[in-house]
Amino acid sequence: MSNFLNENINKMQAYVPGEQPQDKAYIKLNTNESPFPPSSGVVNGLTEKNLQSLRLYCDPQCKVLKNKLANLYGVSDKNVFVSNGSDEILNFAFMAYGNKGVYFADVTYGFYSVFAELYNLPTTVIPLKEDFTLNLAGFYGRNGLVVIANPNAPTGLEISLNEIEEIIKSNPNGVVVIDEAYVDFGGTSALPLIDKYDNLLVVRTYSKSRSMAGARLGYAFANQKLIQDLEKIKYSTNPYNVNSLTQLLGSLAVDDQKYYEDNCRKIIKNRLFTKNELEKLGFKVLDSKANFLFAKSEKITGEKLYLSLKDKGVLVRHFNKQRIADYIRITIGDEKQMQTFIEKVKEILGE
Amino acid sequence: MSNFLNENINKMQAYVPGEQPQDKAYIKLNTNESPFPPSSGVVNGLTEKNLQSLRLYCDPQCKVLKNKLANLYGVSDKNVFVSNGSDEILNFAFMAYGNKGVYFADVTYGFYSVFAELYNLPTTVIPLKEDFTLNLAGFYGRNGLVVIANPNAPTGLEISLNEIEEIIKSNPNGVVVIDEAYVDFGGTSALPLIDKYDNLLVVRTYSKSRSMAGARLGYAFANQKLIQDLEKIKYSTNPYNVNSLTQLLGSLAVDDQKYYEDNCRKIIKNRLFTKNELEKLGFKVLDSKANFLFAKSEKITGEKLYLSLKDKGVLVRHFNKQRIADYIRITIGDEKQMQTFIEKVKEILGE
Repeated sequence: MSNFLNENINKMQAYVPGEQPQDKAYIKLNTNESPFPPSSGVVNGLTEKNLQSLRLYCDPQCKVLKNKLANLYGVSDKNVFVSNGSDEILNFAFMAYGNKGVYFADVTYGFYSVFAELYNLPTTVIPLKEDFTLNLAGFYGRNGLVVIANPNAPTGLEISLNEIEEIIKSNPNGVVVIDEAYVDFGGTSALPLIDKYDNLLVVRTYSKSRSMAGARLGYAFANQKLIQDLEKIKYSTNPYNVNSLTQLLGSLAVDDQKYYEDNCRKIIKNRLFTKNELEKLGFKVLDSKANFLFAKSEKITGEKLYLSLKDKGVLVRHFNKQRIADYIRITIGDEKQMQTFIEKVKEILGE
Repeated sequence: MSNFLNENINKMQAYVPGEQPQDKAYIKLNTNESPFPPSSGVVNGLTEKNLQSLRLYCDPQCKVLKNKLANLYGVSDKNVFVSNGSDEILNFAFMAYGNKGVYFADVTYGFYSVFAELYNLPTTVIPLKEDFTLNLAGFYGRNGLVVIANPNAPTGLEISLNEIEEIIKSNPNGVVVIDEAYVDFGGTSALPLIDKYDNLLVVRTYSKSRSMAGARLGYAFANQKLIQDLEKIKYSTNPYNVNSLTQLLGSLAVDDQKYYEDNCRKIIKNRLFTKNELEKLGFKVLDSKANFLFAKSEKITGEKLYLSLKDKGVLVRHFNKQRIADYIRITIGDEKQMQTFIEKVKEILGE
């Protein structure tokens, strides 16, 4: 860093994305990507004219894409925000609503604490219970910015719609962000509550269930006024935040919704297979509603297992952090990938 | 806006992008886009495999693209930063270096004041001289964040390399941002100074000379430590900020550099034609080094001319702002577009 850098930014810790090693071809079960390509409508959807039109600015209002999402999810386009990945929406939410205090779990998406540090926000960490379930009461009556990943990462555990509603109701003077990056793999969405509560922001992404992590597209649902807040921050930082090809591909993906729903069902099936196999091998596996499993074995440390798997060409994610260092997080891939993963685990435990 | 929104953001003014009306087909000379499509390498460069690979996250380090730019401009890849449009780089610079004070002209890119308000930074506006040239001495010895568009927008006027160097030298304890969005149309770049000064950040974009406004790609050159600062902010806000298709298309565009240089020459030629024609009609036209002209006539107000041109199917930009309300800014299009523009102006003045 330079000597010119703002002191607060200088001393903070940035986010560390999952590794993307290029030394050999891995079975990549470490960053919760989809094993399936985008739908044929997306893969074949770009015309020469679309590419030629790159000379023009993209639509800063993202009208077509917003309409598509609004129709699919049965809301008004005034309730939809789109962004350059869901991280950008989370970033905006911390900027917009964090100044009176932010509240999130100790074991959750690692970016929440980064945003809190970046904007120097008063931060209260609410530890998960011993069994990694959310400490619901810890989020009551905070009236600051409450941020909950549901299903949570990296545990995969979810809370119910009633439990979410209790938290929203008890924080009438603060915004509650429900980060639903993984909701499409069997989770419960808070979307039905956006008309009832003016303080709920539901955040989604194309990176997981829609196989478009590389296209960078996030979206959010909320009361019209919260959407206006996010739009104002967008127009104060980067009005053309979603490029024209991503806007187009995002719309085309909505047209192929059935393909993506089928893929989610496959992932859920492979998740069940993998969980069963790991349990047969003596693993403790949390009850995930996401496209990953969080598991530990008494027979091997999380770090050792991660390194041994990497050595055998399978990448999973290990967090060298308090409370979860014993665990590995395994992204659910296709059937063959998960069979190979289980074989490799067996080899490692047998060695 | 909601009642939850941070007070500072609530009261500020967001940026207003140029209009993109959809009511009819306009000759679009209002947002400084290129009249030429991207090069054939870009238009034909995406394969089915590229689209299928969207399921994977893009490279957060943007290695291939950085290397291409480094080679083209004769610097190390450690001196290059890439981003989701150059607005994002400017945003990061204000976050990183603005806390001791920001300094920019009164008539310049409208986003600088938006960033300053957003982060609540102590702001000193240094008015341009009566003839719209930069008040150089006003930027000496500030030792905060100095931001200069060169060529400036919307005037098109530039300062020399010596003049830039004097400003950099006199601000050893502050960062000097030279925003070179329009440098490729005959301007002078500060790039040769990045090895000599550790406080210089040169900002560029693919939106103008490389015909890729819709792809969202900005880049910057600086001393390695400043680049590390920007990387840290990127990894603290949105690590995957440049999507994989834009990274690829940005690399392919570098391979077609000659095409883009030819286009710049055409724009310069069309700019000269347009300037001459306007002067024949009695306009005062500033000496632009950019892909636009800034001009006024004693015979018609800027607003009237803008509205009359819009009525006749030609969009230019009018800023309803102190000092420049008499002017219109005309993006330089292709030969035919500029001929039509001049015809329409003649019609309007003759009416």
